[in-house]
Amino acid sequence: MNKYELDTPCIIVDRTKLLANINRYQAIADEAGITLRPHVKTHKTPQIARLQVEAGAVGVTVAKLGEAEVMADGGINNIVIAYPIVGQSKLERLVQLAKRVKLTVACDSYEVASAISEAALKAGMVINIWIEIDPGYGRVGVQPGESLERLAGALAPLQGIVVTGVLEFAGHSYDAQTDEERKSIAVHEAAVASSSADTLRGCGFPIETVSGGSTPVSRFASLMQGVTEIRPGTYVFGDLTQVQAGALEIEQCALSVLATVISRPAPDRAVIDGGTKVFTMDGEDSVLGTGRGYVIGHPEINVSWFNEEHGVLVLPPSEQGLKVGDKLEIIPVHCCAVVNMLDELNIVQDDLVQEIWPIAARGKVK
Amino acid sequence: MNKYELDTPCIIVDRTKLLANINRYQAIADEAGITLRPHVKTHKTPQIARLQVEAGAVGVTVAKLGEAEVMADGGINNIVIAYPIVGQSKLERLVQLAKRVKLTVACDSYEVASAISEAALKAGMVINIWIEIDPGYGRVGVQPGESLERLAGALAPLQGIVVTGVLEFAGHSYDAQTDEERKSIAVHEAAVASSSADTLRGCGFPIETVSGGSTPVSRFASLMQGVTEIRPGTYVFGDLTQVQAGALEIEQCALSVLATVISRPAPDRAVIDGGTKVFTMDGEDSVLGTGRGYVIGHPEINVSWFNEEHGVLVLPPSEQGLKVGDKLEIIPVHCCAVVNMLDELNIVQDDLVQEIWPIAARGKVK
Repeated sequence: MNKYELDTPCIIVDRTKLLANINRYQAIADEAGITLRPHVKTHKTPQIARLQVEAGAVGVTVAKLGEAEVMADGGINNIVIAYPIVGQSKLERLVQLAKRVKLTVACDSYEVASAISEAALKAGMVINIWIEIDPGYGRVGVQPGESLERLAGALAPLQGIVVTGVLEFAGHSYDAQTDEERKSIAVHEAAVASSSADTLRGCGFPIETVSGGSTPVSRFASLMQGVTEIRPGTYVFGDLTQVQAGALEIEQCALSVLATVISRPAPDRAVIDGGTKVFTMDGEDSVLGTGRGYVIGHPEINVSWFNEEHGVLVLPPSEQGLKVGDKLEIIPVHCCAVVNMLDELNIVQDDLVQEIWPIAARGKVK
Repeated sequence: MNKYELDTPCIIVDRTKLLANINRYQAIADEAGITLRPHVKTHKTPQIARLQVEAGAVGVTVAKLGEAEVMADGGINNIVIAYPIVGQSKLERLVQLAKRVKLTVACDSYEVASAISEAALKAGMVINIWIEIDPGYGRVGVQPGESLERLAGALAPLQGIVVTGVLEFAGHSYDAQTDEERKSIAVHEAAVASSSADTLRGCGFPIETVSGGSTPVSRFASLMQGVTEIRPGTYVFGDLTQVQAGALEIEQCALSVLATVISRPAPDRAVIDGGTKVFTMDGEDSVLGTGRGYVIGHPEINVSWFNEEHGVLVLPPSEQGLKVGDKLEIIPVHCCAVVNMLDELNIVQDDLVQEIWPIAARGKVK
């Protein structure tokens, strides 16, 4: 089936571009002599996680336990949950999951670590812990230095866990305007992670992995002294936010939304059948000046505003021939968010739909 | 089970407040002597649609065909799809659905109407059409006056359809700052709808229904001269946007998100296990000055910012006793958007979970 025959709104993934993105970031990690552990929150799809592992990834990163379970079911056997696990029912699921894959959990507090320790002891196992450090983003993570030493001291007596790594997420790299700023964040993040690893080694922990890197800074992996692993996610598809961050070109974006024009209420206005329930309101308007999306092949159309089910396009005179029923392919502002709104990825090559992959970890917020 | 024992993040619906909201808006319609046809995009749940019909609603409104199918499966037999149906596969589903419920479809163009006409003729049936008029919002809808007359002339010869109503959505009522402005929009919307109905009657169409009203203007139904039906949606739960619009008080909001504190990285910062994948980025920050949510019982906490899976709260000194594992109940900015992110509503009365209702029409964007 040609992609334009698909019912809309739906997600299209260009297989050629997808594979090129997977290989490009694997090469960045290979050249830096470190491992790649992609964050699967972008695609939420075991088929793509397997492609990443086949290309050389050491395993995957997830945010939520429910995502980890889906990846384990999908054949991924090395998983880092980059998120604190809190609450009895989640601890029970964590223990079950740790029985069937190589599992590591992030943690930034004694409260979280001691509860995992207790659950692991009860199950007669040892669970791998990585300490999350805050490299200046101000989200989660213990502060490096004295706070980290205090936490290490508190964790030292805990049984049932072993602290084998540190991880960081420099989310402020998304605010950087130039590659010089991104490089500087990459270098600083690496220095913080590396010295934190040394702090923990000094406390007797067997630190093997120093894990960092969002998509915008992962490009500079070779500058990240002491980092042994990067965890980018969005590179796999790309989107307008990543184009802005310099991570890839618009032509390299592998994911788009196919939408249909459902109304032409005015010469300069067209309305499509996708709004916030497809595109979401995540992220900023495009730096390309095309609003909340980029219509492939029609760069002068402005994706002006969304309601839940309506997308309002503003048309320049040259685009006013657009008709009800016409289909448009639109690159979104934030691809991870779009993937979370729908149930399937249509995998396309040479404009033909080859396969439909269920987004098996969609909505797994628990 | 007590609601605080629920695994998080999850949605809680207070049954007492839900029923009160359903009855309050039914009373508004009853007092104005018109019918209520709630938009189910807010709850996406047949159980709640049935409560609305039991309270007196004439039927329901949906945006998408997929939502209509779920509502029909759930026992609702009078459905308006307030959205243009475009494309062959959707037309086939439309015809199937029209065989089993009383179905009406909105339309603002000859292109959409003629395709429906053709599909209906082929199936040997007649499909009800309501013409969507633009009351000044600038989304979809034909302009009243000459444009409407031209459209009416074009539709007149079409067989397989019968034009029995007009509908409007005055989305700009959300920008109104005072009840005086909202009343003025209600009166204007009604005048446009009513004169458009007369235009269509003058062209020989048997117009029975004049349908208008978002939640902010529906309160003023008694001022909406000539309108025979209102279609509010969000009133059923309420949210911070509706509180801002004066539609209900914060204490009347029936829906909240239960979230758990997963990190306390700084004295004035707590991080919860819900971000944009639960709360979305729809809508504006709260007018109550509480950011992107309102923590019930803790009005001084600021729901400061979200990533996909993290919600960052800024705590005043009086709230810094908050601990990892504590659960918070948070009223969102836009309840319809939140309902689209998760799979279940936990129905609670007197803090006890009574039932779990699947959000059966979640994600039905086709």
